[in-house]
Amino acid sequence: MKEKLDRLKELLAEITDMQRALALLGWDQQVYMPRGGAEDRGNILSTLSAIGHDMATTEELGELLEALKPYAATLDPDADDACIILRSARDYDRNRKVPTKYVAEFAKVTTLGQSAWEEAKKKSDFALFLPHLEKTIELRREYSSFFTPYDHVYDPLLEDFEPGLKTKDVQEVFAKLRPEQIKLIKAIKEKPQVDDSFLKLTYDQKGQWDFGVEVVKAFGFDFNRGRQDVSVHPFTTSFGIDDVRITTHFLPERVTSAIFSTMHEGGHAMYEQGVSQSLRRTLLASGASMAVHESQSRMWENLIGRSKPLWKHFFPRLQEIFPAQLKNVSLDTFYRAVNKVEPSLIRTEADEATYNLHIMLRMELEIALVEGSLQVKDLPLAWNARMQEFFGLTPPNDRKGVLQDVHWSGGMLGYFPTYALGNLISAQVWEKMNAQLPDVDAQIEKGNFAEILSWLQENIYRHGAKFEPQDIVQRVTESKIRPEPYMNYLNHKYSEVYDL
Amino acid sequence: MKEKLDRLKELLAEITDMQRALALLGWDQQVYMPRGGAEDRGNILSTLSAIGHDMATTEELGELLEALKPYAATLDPDADDACIILRSARDYDRNRKVPTKYVAEFAKVTTLGQSAWEEAKKKSDFALFLPHLEKTIELRREYSSFFTPYDHVYDPLLEDFEPGLKTKDVQEVFAKLRPEQIKLIKAIKEKPQVDDSFLKLTYDQKGQWDFGVEVVKAFGFDFNRGRQDVSVHPFTTSFGIDDVRITTHFLPERVTSAIFSTMHEGGHAMYEQGVSQSLRRTLLASGASMAVHESQSRMWENLIGRSKPLWKHFFPRLQEIFPAQLKNVSLDTFYRAVNKVEPSLIRTEADEATYNLHIMLRMELEIALVEGSLQVKDLPLAWNARMQEFFGLTPPNDRKGVLQDVHWSGGMLGYFPTYALGNLISAQVWEKMNAQLPDVDAQIEKGNFAEILSWLQENIYRHGAKFEPQDIVQRVTESKIRPEPYMNYLNHKYSEVYDL
Repeated sequence: MKEKLDRLKELLAEITDMQRALALLGWDQQVYMPRGGAEDRGNILSTLSAIGHDMATTEELGELLEALKPYAATLDPDADDACIILRSARDYDRNRKVPTKYVAEFAKVTTLGQSAWEEAKKKSDFALFLPHLEKTIELRREYSSFFTPYDHVYDPLLEDFEPGLKTKDVQEVFAKLRPEQIKLIKAIKEKPQVDDSFLKLTYDQKGQWDFGVEVVKAFGFDFNRGRQDVSVHPFTTSFGIDDVRITTHFLPERVTSAIFSTMHEGGHAMYEQGVSQSLRRTLLASGASMAVHESQSRMWENLIGRSKPLWKHFFPRLQEIFPAQLKNVSLDTFYRAVNKVEPSLIRTEADEATYNLHIMLRMELEIALVEGSLQVKDLPLAWNARMQEFFGLTPPNDRKGVLQDVHWSGGMLGYFPTYALGNLISAQVWEKMNAQLPDVDAQIEKGNFAEILSWLQENIYRHGAKFEPQDIVQRVTESKIRPEPYMNYLNHKYSEVYDL
Repeated sequence: MKEKLDRLKELLAEITDMQRALALLGWDQQVYMPRGGAEDRGNILSTLSAIGHDMATTEELGELLEALKPYAATLDPDADDACIILRSARDYDRNRKVPTKYVAEFAKVTTLGQSAWEEAKKKSDFALFLPHLEKTIELRREYSSFFTPYDHVYDPLLEDFEPGLKTKDVQEVFAKLRPEQIKLIKAIKEKPQVDDSFLKLTYDQKGQWDFGVEVVKAFGFDFNRGRQDVSVHPFTTSFGIDDVRITTHFLPERVTSAIFSTMHEGGHAMYEQGVSQSLRRTLLASGASMAVHESQSRMWENLIGRSKPLWKHFFPRLQEIFPAQLKNVSLDTFYRAVNKVEPSLIRTEADEATYNLHIMLRMELEIALVEGSLQVKDLPLAWNARMQEFFGLTPPNDRKGVLQDVHWSGGMLGYFPTYALGNLISAQVWEKMNAQLPDVDAQIEKGNFAEILSWLQENIYRHGAKFEPQDIVQRVTESKIRPEPYMNYLNHKYSEVYDL
C-alpha cells in the first residue's frame, strides 16, 4: 500500500506542477503579457490544459485511487493521506467525465475571450466581446451536460468552486439575506450621508502602493514568499505555498481602491501561504473553496480593514504619507468615509451593505444565461434593467455595466456567488474568533496581527483543501453557512456609522 | 502525405507550446519570482521539462518523421515544410538519445543552481555555489556521453547552441583571432587614454530606462509584441513571435550599461519578432543558432549602437535627459568614451577590443571542467590566474570574478563561444549589408533604421531556424564564419578613436 501511495503522490505532484505552470501563464497574461501575445498564449494554455487534463485522468491514476480508497477509510478522516486520497478520487471522477478536447477548446476560447473583453471594456463596446461570450456560454452548457443528471444546469458549474453546494442551497440563503440587506440600505438612506470628498482627491500612486504594502506586511503577508504587481482586475494566484502573487490596481480619484484591494488580495494570499507544508505539491495546497477563500479576503479587507481599531492604528501613518489630503480629516470622519454606503455601479468598489446585491444580480443573470432563458446579446439590457431595479441606477456605458468584471470572459460562471457566501462565512468565523480570542480589537489597534493570523492558520489555513466548504465552516463555527452573523455584523457596524 | 504532414505540424505545435511555457517559467524565475519560490519552481520546471521531452520523443513523432523525410527530399530545400521536417528529424534523433529522467533532473538541478548562484554572487561566496556547479558539470559530462562517439567531450554541448559546429572549428577560429586582438590592445595601450569620467556620475534610472526604450523603439522593437523588464542579468526570451521579452539592468556609476544592454537585447528581440509568421508555432520560430542570434544583438549594440552616426542622432536627446551630466560633453568626447578600451573584470561591461578574450577565458575553463582536467573547487583560482594572464588583473572577489555570469548556474556550457562567434558574424553581415545598402551611415545619422531592419529581416530574421548557422552565414555573406571582417572593423574603428 505504501508503494501505491507513494506513486499516487508522485502523480499528484506532477499534476500540481502542471496546474502551477498554468497559473503562471494566467498570471502573466493578466499582468505583463503584451497585446500581441494573446493568440499564442491561447494556444499554449490550450495545449497545457489538455496535457494537464490527460495527466489527471489516466487509467493508472484511477487504478491507484480505487486501490487506495479502502485504505483511506481505515485512516483518521482528518489525516492528510486520507484527505489526499478521497479528494483526489472525487476530482478524478469529475475530470473523467470531461473530454480532453473540451478542456483544450475551453482554454483557448477563454484566453481569446479575456483579450477581447479587455479590448471591449477599454472601448466600452460589448459587441467586441459578444461572440466570445456566446461561445463561452455554449461551452459552459456543454460542460454541465457532462454531469447529467443534475438538479439544476448551474449545479455542475457551482460545484467547481464550491464542492458539495447546490444552486438551491445558495438561492435559499440569498432569499433570506436579500430582504435584510434591502432593509438596512433603506434605513441608511434616511440618514444624512457621510462625507468622503477627501477620498476623491488626487493621491500619488507610489504612496498608495507603499501604504498597502506596509499594511499587508503588518498583517503577515510574507514578501519572501510572494509579491505584488499591478493588473486591471486585482487577483491572487499561487505557484506554490512559497510563491503566492497578489495584484492591485489604482483608480484615479478613489484612493481607497488600491488600499482595500491590497488588503483583500493579501487575505487570499495569507490563506495560501498558511497551508501546511505537509500538503506541498498536492492538490490540497490551496483553499477549501472559493467561498472560504473569499471569507478570508473579505475578513482582512472589511472586518479588519474597515474597522475602527485598524484605522486608529494606521490612519496617522496614512496622514503622514498624504498630509495635503488628510491632515485636516479626523479619524472618525475617515472611518465613516471608508464605510460610506451608497448604491453604486461597480461591484469591486461597492460598500459592504450593497455588495451582496451586486452578486445576486450576477448570479441571476448567469443562471438565466446557462438556462438559456436569456440570450447573450440581450445581456447588456438585462444588466441595466436589474441595475435599475436593485439600485435605481443605470450605467452610463457598458464599461461601467456589464463589461466591468473579468469573470465571464474567463468562463468562470458559478464563481460570483462565492463572494457573497464568503461575506457570510467571514462573519461566522469572526464571531467564533472573537469568542476565543478576547482582545481582538485591542490587538488590531496596536497593529499586532500575529495572534489573529495564527488563530486563522490553526483553524483554517493549514488545512488547505482537506475539507469541503460546508465541513470546514461547520468545524470552525459549529454551523453551516448562514446569513445571521453577517447581518448582525452589518447592522451593528452601520448603527454606529450612520447613527441608525 | 498531406495528412501525415498536418499531424506532424500539430505535434510540433504542441511541443513548441510546451517550450514557450518553459520559457515563461524561466523568465519569471529571473525577473519576478520571490526567493521562496525556488524549490517549487525547480519541481515545476523539472516536471514540465520531462513532459516536453516525452512529447519530443514519442514513437508517433519518429514514425511521422521517417515517413516524411523522403517527401522532404522532393521539395525545394528552402521550403518551410522541407526545413520543418529535416530540422525536426535532427532534433528528434538527438532528443531520443537523452533519457527523460536526465532531463527532469537537469532542470531541477539547474533551477536550484540558479538560485544558489544568485545568493552566492550576492554574498561573493563561491562555496555556496560549489556543490551545485559540481552536480551540473557531472550532468553535462553525462549528457555528452549520450552522444558517443564524439571527437571532443565538448562537441555535444556546443552542438546544442551551434548545430553543425565542432570544438575544433571554434578553436581554430579563436587561434587566428587571439593574436590579432592582443596586437590591437597593445597598440591602444600605447596611446593616451580617453576620458569617460562623466559616464560614471549618477544618472537616474528612469531617464536611463526611457532613453533605452526610445532607442529600441526607433530601431524597430515592437512593444505591442514584447516588453522590457529588469533582471540581474539582462536576457531575451520569446513566448511566441508576437510576445518577445527583453530585460535590462542598472549599474550604479555606469550609465552606459542599461543603455547598451537594452540595445543588445533589442537586437535579439527584433530577430525573434522578425521570424516569418509562416513558421509560427514551429520549432523554427527562433534564431538559427546562438551565434547568429548574438551577431544581431552585438550588431545593434556595437556596430550600430556604438557608432558615430548613431550618437550624432541620439546624443542631443541624451543630453536633454541628463543635462547636468552631459551638457558640457562634446559628441566626439562621448563617442570616444563609449568606445574606451580597457582591460576589465566584467565581461558584459567589456569593450569590443577585449570582449572576445573574456570569452576565450571562459571557453578554456569550461572545456577543462568537462574534460575533468580542472576540478570545480579549483575554478576560482584558475579563473583568477587566467584573468592575470589575459588582462593583468586579479578580481577583488568572486562576485567580480568567477561568479559574475549566470550561464554555468543554468547548465549552459557551450554557450559562451557563441558570443565571440556572434561578434565575427556581425561584422561579416555588416560588410555585406553596407555593400548592398549604400547609405547605411547616413540612415543611422537620421535615426532611420527601417531600411536596415528590413534588410536584416529579409536576409536573416524571416528564416528563423530554417538553416544551420554556417549555412545562413554562407548564404548571406558568401563565406563561413571567419575573423577577418571583425578585425578589420575593430582596427578601423579604434584607429579613429585612439589615433592609432
